[in-house]
Amino acid sequence: MTMLIRKATADDAKAIVEIILPTIREGATYALDPNMSEADALAYWMGPDKETFVAEEDGAVLGTYYMRPNQAGGGRHVCNCGYMTSAAATGRGVARRMCEHSLEHARSRGYRAMQFNFVVSTNERAVRLWQSLGFGIVGRLPVAFQHPTAGDVDAFVMYQQL
Amino acid sequence: MTMLIRKATADDAKAIVEIILPTIREGATYALDPNMSEADALAYWMGPDKETFVAEEDGAVLGTYYMRPNQAGGGRHVCNCGYMTSAAATGRGVARRMCEHSLEHARSRGYRAMQFNFVVSTNERAVRLWQSLGFGIVGRLPVAFQHPTAGDVDAFVMYQQL
Repeated sequence: MTMLIRKATADDAKAIVEIILPTIREGATYALDPNMSEADALAYWMGPDKETFVAEEDGAVLGTYYMRPNQAGGGRHVCNCGYMTSAAATGRGVARRMCEHSLEHARSRGYRAMQFNFVVSTNERAVRLWQSLGFGIVGRLPVAFQHPTAGDVDAFVMYQQL
Repeated sequence: MTMLIRKATADDAKAIVEIILPTIREGATYALDPNMSEADALAYWMGPDKETFVAEEDGAVLGTYYMRPNQAGGGRHVCNCGYMTSAAATGRGVARRMCEHSLEHARSRGYRAMQFNFVVSTNERAVRLWQSLGFGIVGRLPVAFQHPTAGDVDAFVMYQQL
């Protein structure tokens, strides 16, 4: 069983929705409207400003990520990514594999840094994973996130030069 | 001569374009495509996700700013603003007045913080102004901006709880 990471196609839309919608509905890790429609969620994740990838194993999509320029103009050499893993595949290193893939892809595209704008501080597993892959916490946003169960919490800006 | 800050209307579009387009074309302070069309610039500044204001004196628009939620979902209680002053009105405190107005407006709308995502570090005048109005530098993005004359420079994340 080899995990393959490849560009997403229109045929992956259903599998991607099944991964991203539960996470969006939970509202605990992404600053997105938990009630957004399936169509809006898909438009967000696979929008024309983004390159979208899937992590696949034996024909099953286990995770997905996107990459886009984080800013335009003089800031377009820094990219931004978002990653989500299927609940069923959690703990198997899918996010790590996707992030490693994204760093390599970003370099190949000429990006010179990668920035995560809003990492919820309670998402400790993600914070540790990004740190282990070279990201530093370069900013802390005080009580910038209203967590559905933890209440008001901080968010981090994480960054890595490539 | 009293400066009035009011909601922008469709009738202000021409005056707003004349303020924002030179700044966008210069590419030194905003991470926007310097070559973006007039229509795109206006759509960006007066888009449906934003509230847009103008600072007016004796019928002349001297500056403009927008406010929007910086994130959705659990992050929608933090707003983001952008401000631009007419080159002809620089040094007359227009930006300060607009920022003071925006902080008051943000409180009245129930926002609990204001965040500037990308303040170019070479824009020292703006950095000092925002600091004097209560913002702190909560993050530094290393060489995140390619300045048209200064080369690669850092950008700041600035933030203030309301």
